[in-house]
Amino acid sequence: MFELHHAWASSASRRVRLFMAEKGIAYQSRLVRIGAFEHHTPEYLKLNPSGVIPALVHDGRPIAESGVICEYLDDLQPQPPLRPADPYERAQMRLWVKYADDFCLPNLIVHNWSQHLQPIAQKWSDEELDQRLSRIPTKQRREFWHRIARRPFTEQEKREALENLTKALDRMEQAMASAPWLTGATYSLADIAMVPFVRRIEELAPEALGASRRPLVAGWWDRIRARAAYAQARIGSFAEQAGQDEQP
Amino acid sequence: MFELHHAWASSASRRVRLFMAEKGIAYQSRLVRIGAFEHHTPEYLKLNPSGVIPALVHDGRPIAESGVICEYLDDLQPQPPLRPADPYERAQMRLWVKYADDFCLPNLIVHNWSQHLQPIAQKWSDEELDQRLSRIPTKQRREFWHRIARRPFTEQEKREALENLTKALDRMEQAMASAPWLTGATYSLADIAMVPFVRRIEELAPEALGASRRPLVAGWWDRIRARAAYAQARIGSFAEQAGQDEQP
Repeated sequence: MFELHHAWASSASRRVRLFMAEKGIAYQSRLVRIGAFEHHTPEYLKLNPSGVIPALVHDGRPIAESGVICEYLDDLQPQPPLRPADPYERAQMRLWVKYADDFCLPNLIVHNWSQHLQPIAQKWSDEELDQRLSRIPTKQRREFWHRIARRPFTEQEKREALENLTKALDRMEQAMASAPWLTGATYSLADIAMVPFVRRIEELAPEALGASRRPLVAGWWDRIRARAAYAQARIGSFAEQAGQDEQP
Repeated sequence: MFELHHAWASSASRRVRLFMAEKGIAYQSRLVRIGAFEHHTPEYLKLNPSGVIPALVHDGRPIAESGVICEYLDDLQPQPPLRPADPYERAQMRLWVKYADDFCLPNLIVHNWSQHLQPIAQKWSDEELDQRLSRIPTKQRREFWHRIARRPFTEQEKREALENLTKALDRMEQAMASAPWLTGATYSLADIAMVPFVRRIEELAPEALGASRRPLVAGWWDRIRARAAYAQARIGSFAEQAGQDEQP
């Protein structure tokens, strides 16, 4: 039995939902309200000591980190395979996941949190903010919360973050010069890992996905959206889903 | 044919050297002088666009990131296995690697770079520094270089970084309460990933490894050092190896 602790608008949650939809693995949905700090409660920290979503619970045992969760599910249930069989392509797949986590996500957070969490965090008193910050296990996330609560990202920073995200599209375009998917002939976790970022770029800078500008990415994005799993994963409008995520 | 681009004192390089020694995989050693910025040359960036070491070249094809390199080698040559067969334990292994990369490494860098690279970087003129910083692909590493060149880590920051590293020992002690190795009955990449950090703690705060303080970690460390591969990997004195790394 699988339980997924996630939020609709969260990029890492969207990655796992899409992966599970592709695998045909059913799960119970447990929504985590980020604005209410539900991911920093002692109960949630037992599932993931880093206090980030999503977390998967399988037969009572928790697994954290979206990339690790996806590889776990592929180890557990190899069909249909979502990792290339070739070791070199599989290594490239892991590099895409790492690139999404280490480069794309911090840039997307600048936009997502400014839009979704800043209006909530700015209302906190200094005392409330200190108390909340003290419950955040990682330095990176503490800094992000502090930024949106008291020192909002500037327009210049948002512009740079978006430019960085479009660099990811250039890297994708280059990777697909010789193959239909990011790591070769096989649709894989590499493609799935990039979907949540491309989905947000579609909202933030739709022209970047134009067929004349980046034809291979545009074709890839059409093929992704045509997949049945894409609809099942419910990777919807960020504004709408961020609103849903905070409902009690 | 394998070529490893690495430095003796680098934690991520040490991880890969130990992993390859355990596998019995021979390689040509290519030393990269960090202080001379050899990892930011156009040639090196072709091996790893992030500009960090190590990088492995296998039959002419480059693979970056120490964790990805190790999983690649285990996919390529499964014997002796260095990943647990059980999917849940394997997921735990990946979480240890991620914890080492995302939490332990940034804390260790505070000490390693202050000791090894600060004396080099402080001598650069502002112009030279700007030029070098402009060649660094990642924001995190740009910030670290800027810190050691112009705003050295304080004693307080070093103390906190060392405290964080000893927290990693507590996590290890806890994990081994019910098993001899970090993810269970099998020695794995999880253990290998932590070795370079424990080796440095042995130099920076040897009392933290005392058998009365953390008996399970102390026993683990004895067993690690007794392995033939440990000697082959040449994980020596940081001060000595950092010196060797900068020789032309």
